[in-house]
Amino acid sequence: MNSKHNTEVLIDGKIYTLAGSEEEGYIQRLASYINEMILTLKRQEGFTKQSAEYQNVMIELNMADDYFKARELINRLEQQKAEMEKETYSLKHELVATQMKLEAAKHELSDAKKE
Amino acid sequence: MNSKHNTEVLIDGKIYTLAGSEEEGYIQRLASYINEMILTLKRQEGFTKQSAEYQNVMIELNMADDYFKARELINRLEQQKAEMEKETYSLKHELVATQMKLEAAKHELSDAKKE
Repeated sequence: MNSKHNTEVLIDGKIYTLAGSEEEGYIQRLASYINEMILTLKRQEGFTKQSAEYQNVMIELNMADDYFKARELINRLEQQKAEMEKETYSLKHELVATQMKLEAAKHELSDAKKE
Repeated sequence: MNSKHNTEVLIDGKIYTLAGSEEEGYIQRLASYINEMILTLKRQEGFTKQSAEYQNVMIELNMADDYFKARELINRLEQQKAEMEKETYSLKHELVATQMKLEAAKHELSDAKKE
């Protein structure tokens, strides 16, 4: 199912034909994100006066910044998940221990009532 | 503390001087990531035969792909976190209910022994 096909994308006002196996809708979402990033930078004073090369590097650095911030968030979430797993484990442990004590107390109570 | 300073970065074999408030070490990590991405693409057959513009678009699309995959992971982790929060809440609730039943059983037992 990994058949290659062509997808046309508009990036920074130019059309590019890409050959690949990625789903077209996904490629278009990537292109939208890139175009928004370029537009945001172009709105900054003096940006378009810089060389095309410098502009490209700034686009790449800003995209890398988004990616690194996402990775930081992933690290925080994975840490929180690990802490919650520990808490869940200890709660389950405490629950089972309490249930066993309750069963023992009920048993003792039933014996006491028989006497 | 948000003072601006200049940072020199090497990207794709060229030095760029960036004015900004970001920490230098962080900028260098961003640059390393970009350089690795460029190197990976340049190793692909025929890549360097494409126009500089096409090469840039491919770099941006691949970076956007990394970012989108990170965002997808964030969504999954946030969903897992929400499910675990629900589980923890319900475990705490069950634990308190069981503890109350245990206390009641102990009380009843102590009364039964007095009789």
